[in-house]
Parts: sequence; structure tokens; C-alpha cells
Amino acid sequence: MTDTSRLETFCDGVFAIAITLLVLGIRVPGVKEDLGAALLNEWPTFLAYLISFVTVGIMWVNHHRLFALIERSNPTFAYINVGFLLFVAFVPYPTELMATQFAGLNDDGKRLAMLLYSGTFLAIAIMFNAIWLYASSGARLLKPGLDLEALKVGARRFAFGPPAYLIITLLAIVNPYVSLTLVGLLAVYWMLPGSAPVEAPRQ
Amino acid sequence: MTDTSRLETFCDGVFAIAITLLVLGIRVPGVKEDLGAALLNEWPTFLAYLISFVTVGIMWVNHHRLFALIERSNPTFAYINVGFLLFVAFVPYPTELMATQFAGLNDDGKRLAMLLYSGTFLAIAIMFNAIWLYASSGARLLKPGLDLEALKVGARRFAFGPPAYLIITLLAIVNPYVSLTLVGLLAVYWMLPGSAPVEAPRQ
Amino acid sequence: MTDTSRLETFCDGVFAIAITLLVLGIRVPGVKEDLGAALLNEWPTFLAYLISFVTVGIMWVNHHRLFALIERSNPTFAYINVGFLLFVAFVPYPTELMATQFAGLNDDGKRLAMLLYSGTFLAIAIMFNAIWLYASSGARLLKPGLDLEALKVGARRFAFGPPAYLIITLLAIVNPYVSLTLVGLLAVYWMLPGSAPVEAPRQ
Amino acid sequence: MTDTSRLETFCDGVFAIAITLLVLGIRVPGVKEDLGAALLNEWPTFLAYLISFVTVGIMWVNHHRLFALIERSNPTFAYINVGFLLFVAFVPYPTELMATQFAGLNDDGKRLAMLLYSGTFLAIAIMFNAIWLYASSGARLLKPGLDLEALKVGARRFAFGPPAYLIITLLAIVNPYVSLTLVGLLAVYWMLPGSAPVEAPRQ
Repeated sequence: MTDTSRLETFCDGVFAIAITLLVLGIRVPGVKEDLGAALLNEWPTFLAYLISFVTVGIMWVNHHRLFALIERSNPTFAYINVGFLLFVAFVPYPTELMATQFAGLNDDGKRLAMLLYSGTFLAIAIMFNAIWLYASSGARLLKPGLDLEALKVGARRFAFGPPAYLIITLLAIVNPYVSLTLVGLLAVYWMLPGSAPVEAPRQ
Repeated sequence: MTDTSRLETFCDGVFAIAITLLVLGIRVPGVKEDLGAALLNEWPTFLAYLISFVTVGIMWVNHHRLFALIERSNPTFAYINVGFLLFVAFVPYPTELMATQFAGLNDDGKRLAMLLYSGTFLAIAIMFNAIWLYASSGARLLKPGLDLEALKVGARRFAFGPPAYLIITLLAIVNPYVSLTLVGLLAVYWMLPGSAPVEAPRQ
Repeated sequence: MTDTSRLETFCDGVFAIAITLLVLGIRVPGVKEDLGAALLNEWPTFLAYLISFVTVGIMWVNHHRLFALIERSNPTFAYINVGFLLFVAFVPYPTELMATQFAGLNDDGKRLAMLLYSGTFLAIAIMFNAIWLYASSGARLLKPGLDLEALKVGARRFAFGPPAYLIITLLAIVNPYVSLTLVGLLAVYWMLPGSAPVEAPRQ
Repeated sequence: MTDTSRLETFCDGVFAIAITLLVLGIRVPGVKEDLGAALLNEWPTFLAYLISFVTVGIMWVNHHRLFALIERSNPTFAYINVGFLLFVAFVPYPTELMATQFAGLNDDGKRLAMLLYSGTFLAIAIMFNAIWLYASSGARLLKPGLDLEALKVGARRFAFGPPAYLIITLLAIVNPYVSLTLVGLLAVYWMLPGSAPVEAPRQ
């Protein structure tokens, strides 16, 4: 049993790097191209950057809020977080893949890329719930004095993530544009007050 | 309500990564080229690296000084900071774009690239003011015992950022070289004593 | 003699960056390719990402647990950690090399790439033991009040790393697929409860 | 006046990222090449990775030891550190440039690349002394109770850095191989006990 500070530092590092590496996926046009047209053509890349950045940023905020409730860590909890980070760190890949396909004309490619993109957020949402369930089950790693009933109510909002991203992922097969729009809207939804997964304890 | 330490760690991480990724935008010449000529030809890239690094570095110093006044964080404040970081993390892209265009002969390309480059700093300056306004309005997140009147005077200097970068951004359409020079000079100006946005409390 | 907090921050940073850079080694297929076939063809890259991420992630957990026992640092200890990080930060290179070769048909290339890949983990395991031996020898840098006999028993599990990776490295010459499978299985083994190198002190 | 913790976090981040980005400069050979020959051909890249990693790693250790003596920060001190980091973050560029040139047959290219490579370390050494001089002059930012006379003696060892790297930089014009060897030897020298720039206070 150790405190969570070094685990938080490590998670913060991976979040910060994954979110900042997104920019490397945006192609810099050459000198000879018509720059205005080239940049307009890259709109899916800019949109992908925006949606991935905001979604990962909000996940970081929620991870941060979750850890405000957690007092202790143990190796199993650290491994679950490493599994969570596995998908967070992966985000730049499906982001670039999706942006590349959306800039082209291959409809099957768009569907598959969007499937992988929202599938990655589905995996992150599942792992996020795993982190919460492991920490809160029997109040295993929680700070003392928390209102467990209130936390349970708050945690129901977490549980909304996996089915929501599952539906969006399946929708990618039908229409990748609708699926992408929903990933963007979901990011906005996570930000709304009241949709916050768990209220941090008032002191 | 939580303390700001983890938010600061995350912001520091994004700042540190964005500033260090700038170097990846500098092209390494091949063996067969005349290395001296190739490096001289890359002068806009080196200049872009220098200006972006110093500007982002100073923004970090100011962000750091601002947070010395702030005691608490909340989700909304965290989201505003994520929005701020969205543009900070974006800086390597317009930096490389601008360097690429300035090394070429396409004048329209230079204008557009410079517009995007200074426009990114404009967005950062606006978000920086948003961070300050949210934290200081009604002393919402500030440390107790600060001299609010003195802070208001100091904050007027902040407010200089957005119009200054707006003018520089518009100038990019007229003359991108003048615009670039002014971005560089503004970085120097931010460093001058007295132009510091807010004085940290003396203890 | 200083405390270990800044050394831990630095190590955490390198771990977090190395683990997140792995994603840059995954090639994004172009628009014109059959995306499904292209992604299936990249299976060694995804597997390499998974194995490297999990192995480095577990090494981070163990490094973290080791440092829970350590109270002080000195320059020599810092240098040994820099030597350890030299190989941790190198991991993305043999990972990409191995993935590239496994996607092709050059058997000698596969053997050599796998040799370098598991050889890197061998070097990490050796340096990890060096960190432990330097810190624990004569209880040089340890926290007071630890049960040294129990630590010695726990540390025997560390000592398993170098010979295990040595055998896997030699096996790479015979059969790189068997060698890769064993690197993956070893990662799972490190996660098993009881295989934890050293138990952190209960407080 | 603020404490130095956030400045240290930021510096640690830039150091950790710059040192880890070095690996991106190593070219991954393709499947069709003779892998053994291709890797042997890349020896300057591996050597460059090793020398840059160790040199930057040791600079981090020394920066860390220096900050163990420093209690306070101010904006000017932060700007000097940003200037120091400008060159630390630049290291991956001359490292890759040098490795590229040393793998080729262009002698002028080797000289110029080596000039830039050791020139970068010269700039880092100068900025490192600037950090120390600003912090220690009149004990401006130092912790109370330090033995200033002993610190002055220790600091003489710092002052050895700039002339040493200046000579190595000039030697690059005569013989880049000798110059590279000396950069490597100097890294070893910095690690020797007794050559430590400043002894941290014993408590």
C-alpha cells in the first residue's frame, strides 16, 4: 500500500504526452501547394485533433476527480491504470487514421477507421469504470469519511460511458459521419455540470 | 473543489512537451547536400524554433505566476485550462508551417501561414485571460489575503495580449515579415520587468 | 544526500514518454489501400505495441514499488538510474524494428530484430538489479525500520529477470516467434501477485 | 518570489522529453535491407544516442543538485532557465545531424555537424553557469545556512565547462572524430566523484 501521488504523476505524464502528440498527426503542406486549399482539404485532421484533444482532456479531468476520492494504491490498482493508459496513449493512432480516411474517398476505409476510433474510446470508458469499481468496491482504496451512497449515485453516470460509446462504435458501420458527430457531442456532454461522474468531497 | 497541484502538473507537462516537440519540426539535411548552404537555407526554421520556444516558455512563466495566486480548482476551471492547452499544444504545427512557407517563394503561403501562426498566439492570449477572469471574478479561486485592487491593476497588462496579437495577426495579411518580427518583439516585451501580468504576493 | 522526489519525477517522465512514443511506431495506412487488409498486415506492430507497453508499464510499477523503500538519493544512485533510463527510453526503437521485420519475410532480419528487442529488456533487467543492489547494499539508501531479511527474500525474485531475459534473447537466434511469445508471457508473470519483486512496507 | 518546485517540474519535463526524443532520430531499417549490415552502418547514430543521452542525463543530475541549494525563484530566474532549456531541448537536432553526417563521406559536413553538436553543449554549459551565477550572486536565491566559501570552491568546477566545450567545438573544425571522442570523455569526467560541481548541503 502506497499513496497515489506517483501513480497520478505517471498518469498525468501519459495523458499530457498523448494529448500533445496529437499535433504530430497533422500533415504540414509543402511550399508548392496552394496553401489555402491544402489546409481546407485537411479539415478532417483539424476536427480530429479538436475532438480527440477535448475528449482526452475531459477524461483527464475526470481521472483527476476520481483520484481526489482515492487515498491508497496497490500493485493491482497500478496495473489496471496501466491498462487504462494503454488505450489513452493509443488515441493518436486512430485519430490520424480517421483523419486520413475522412480526407479521402474510400467509404469502407472511413467506416473501419471510425470503428477503431470510437472503439478506442469505448475501451477507455470500460477501463475507467474498472478503475472506479476496483477502488470503490468495499471502499477498498477510498478516503475515509466519504458518503458511499452519494458516490454510488454519482457513479451511475460513469456507467453511461461504455454503452454510449458501444452504440457510437456500432453506428460507425452504418454512418461514420453520424458516429464522429456523436463522439464530439459526447465530449460536450461530459463537460456539462451535473454530468460529472462523481462529486469530489466538500471539505 | 480540489487544490491546483495536479492541474499544474498536467499543464506543466503539456507545456514541456509542446516546447520540446518544436525541435522535431527542424528538417535534418541529408549527407549529399552542401550542409552549410542547407543549414543557412533553413534560417526561417531556426528562427521559428527560437520565437516559438521563447514565447511558449514565457507563457509558461506567466501561467506559473498566475497559479501562484490561485488556491483552488473546480471542473469548469480545469476545462478552461484544457481549452488553453489545446492551443499551446497546437503551436508546433503553425511553427513548422510558417517555417516551411518562409523558406519558399509563395507569398500567399507566407501570409496565410503567418496568419495561422500569430492567430494561434491570439487564441492562447484570449484563453489566458479567460483563465484569469474565471479565477479572479469575485475572487472565486484566489488565495485569501490578496490585495484585489493591486491585482486588478496588474491584470490590465494581461488584457494587452489579445489586442496586440490581433493587430499582429491582421498585419500578417499585409506583410508577414513585419508580423513575425512583432511576435518576436512581443516575446521580449513580456520578459521586461514591470510588464509582468500580475505580481505574485509577497510573503 | 537529497530525497528521491525529483529523481522519481524525472524517471516517471522518461517512462511516461517512452511508453507513449511507442504509438508513433505504428504506420498509418494511406487512403488508397484496402484498410482492413492493411491493418491485418500490421498485426506484428499492434502486438509489439501491446507487449512493449505492458512490459514497460510493469517495469514502471516495479520501479515505483522499489522507490517506496528508498529514502535518500546521491549522485552515484542518480547516474545508475540514468543508465537504467538509457535502455527504457530506447525501447521504442527495437519495438519498431521488430514489428517491421515480423511484417516481412526476412528470417535473418526477424532473428536479429528479436535479439535486439529482448536484449534491450535484458539490459533493463540488469540495470534494475543494479539500482536495487546499490540502494540496498548495507541498507545504504533505504528507509529506516525495514525488515532487511524479508527484503532479501523478495529481492531473489528480481534476480530472476536477467537470466530469464538472457535465455529469451538467446532463443531469438533459434526461433524469434517463441522468443517473442516468452517476452509476452514474462510480462504476464511479473503481474502475478507473489511475483512482486519486493513487498512494500506495511504501515 | 515563489518556491522552485514548479520550475523544477517544468525543467524535469523538458529534460525527460528531450532525452527520450533522441530515440526518434535512429532510423529503422526496412525489411529488404541486410539488417546486420544496416545496423552496423548506423553505428554513428547509436554512438550519438549514447553520448547525447549520457551527457544530457548528467546535466540533469547537476541541475538537480544545483536546485538542492536554491530556495526561491523569481521571473528573471525562470527566464534564465527557459534560455537554458532552449538548448537542452535542441539537443536531438544536432545529435541526428551529427549521426547523419558521420554515416556519410562528406568531411566538410562532418566538421560542420560536429561544430553545431559541441556548440550546443557549449551553450548549455554557459547557460548552466548563468543559472548558478544569478542564483548565488549575493546569495540571492540560496537556502539559508549554506557555507558560501565552500560553494565558491565547488563552483569553480562549473566554470570548467564553457572553456572545455569551447576547445572541443573549435577542435571540430580540425578533426570531428577527436572532438566527438572528447565530448564522450567529458561526460565520463562529469560523473567522477569530486568533479561534482557543487556539494549539496549535508543535513
